[in-house]
Amino acid sequence: MKPIGVFDSGIGGLTVVKELMRQLPGEDIVYLGDTAHLPYGTKSAATIVRFSLDNILFLLKQNVKLIVIACNSASSLALDAIRQHFRIPVIGVIEPGVRQAAKLTRTKYVGVIGTRATIKSKAYENQIKRIDPAIKVISQACPLFVPLVEEGWLNQSATNTIAKRYLDLLSKRNKRMDTLILGCTHYPLLKSTIRRILGNGIKLVDSTQQVVKEVSQILQKEGRANNNPQVSRRHKFYVTDDPDEFAYQAVRFLGYRLPKVKRIINVSD
Amino acid sequence: MKPIGVFDSGIGGLTVVKELMRQLPGEDIVYLGDTAHLPYGTKSAATIVRFSLDNILFLLKQNVKLIVIACNSASSLALDAIRQHFRIPVIGVIEPGVRQAAKLTRTKYVGVIGTRATIKSKAYENQIKRIDPAIKVISQACPLFVPLVEEGWLNQSATNTIAKRYLDLLSKRNKRMDTLILGCTHYPLLKSTIRRILGNGIKLVDSTQQVVKEVSQILQKEGRANNNPQVSRRHKFYVTDDPDEFAYQAVRFLGYRLPKVKRIINVSD
Repeated sequence: MKPIGVFDSGIGGLTVVKELMRQLPGEDIVYLGDTAHLPYGTKSAATIVRFSLDNILFLLKQNVKLIVIACNSASSLALDAIRQHFRIPVIGVIEPGVRQAAKLTRTKYVGVIGTRATIKSKAYENQIKRIDPAIKVISQACPLFVPLVEEGWLNQSATNTIAKRYLDLLSKRNKRMDTLILGCTHYPLLKSTIRRILGNGIKLVDSTQQVVKEVSQILQKEGRANNNPQVSRRHKFYVTDDPDEFAYQAVRFLGYRLPKVKRIINVSD
Repeated sequence: MKPIGVFDSGIGGLTVVKELMRQLPGEDIVYLGDTAHLPYGTKSAATIVRFSLDNILFLLKQNVKLIVIACNSASSLALDAIRQHFRIPVIGVIEPGVRQAAKLTRTKYVGVIGTRATIKSKAYENQIKRIDPAIKVISQACPLFVPLVEEGWLNQSATNTIAKRYLDLLSKRNKRMDTLILGCTHYPLLKSTIRRILGNGIKLVDSTQQVVKEVSQILQKEGRANNNPQVSRRHKFYVTDDPDEFAYQAVRFLGYRLPKVKRIINVSD
């Protein structure tokens, strides 16, 4: 039985891994965190595509049966190029999040927050227009959220001040927004801060659950799901920078420390 | 007449370029900003060394006569490896900053702030011990300063809150510090915030001037200085990610927009 491949620029994609483990306990996972190049969210489209294609090549060599791009910046900018070049089924995090937001909104005003690259790409706007052209999108880049999460400052007063500033910019633009897509895999860790600022009137969409549901559907449809949870797990974690630092940081995302993380330098490794 | 090579992980090194232009108006400059891989300060030593050696190879192909590592993380972690492998004179930003701080301190308590990589490397401590073993060093990593500068939040209230938190951690450890080294090329842009928090009793060391003074001394000594300021300037700027974004951001550092920036993808380009 082949594993599922997952990549992210760093550690944020582990939120998807956690949900894969929960919903699909029979599946093996190969994770690649391109930590030597993180963050993607401040880089250009061309560079994000280049890094993403390298990551796909590495995962293909690990003989994966399906790939999840657990990074919103890479999903926004590289998914089309990847689908154009490769045969393997590839799932990004944009479409599932959008489908969920379209279901939840009543006012038809949906907010999106993400990295500068994700917001600039208009990937969410374009996808929402495809699903429901009546929905209006209000978006806001929040470039400081990723470094705040990576610093572990989840509930500091500075985090609150910064989040308030970004979210004020967002809600000033439209008062009718009733749904907000957390368009970056790091942002669920700031959920309580964001909820405190926005109040309970606005639904927060964290696309992780929906992503894994769609992974499951594709595998079932293709008859390639491993539904046997008794099988011993052989998850593998690879990074392009320091494996120990990654294993240490992983606790915050998975709730336990990873037993072993391997470092690769080039996709040809 | 050969140019001077300068590299940084991104745009911060332009503070050194500006000072080179001021003190050495006859010299041509080739600048490389490794923007596809920035920031270096959150990466491991091995990865910073690998990126730095690539940068040196690129600059050597541009036929430079001397190289300035205008990045504290790379100076902290890669200078020894670079000097070991290459013949060309290479100047980092650590030693000049340390020499200046050693001259300025009266209490013999010197503070250092920098990225996580710089602080973890203990490069400043080790260098200070070599120059004056009587000086005590108090250091503090400030990982959020670089993203704040890159976001352009130089005087926001959040910036003040974050700076206060980091600097409190520093001064709590020792009340006698009278000199603080700004151990990152981005930090001079936060000088007014840092000064407001610390007050005028603490001298801030921005090593840029001293770095360029040492460049000048080496070139004069070797008879390779170009002292003729009438020569038409042919500065060249290269980046590994989006050149337009770099040119745009450069205004904040140089005070003018760069006419042309060229993108390279590999050092073999």
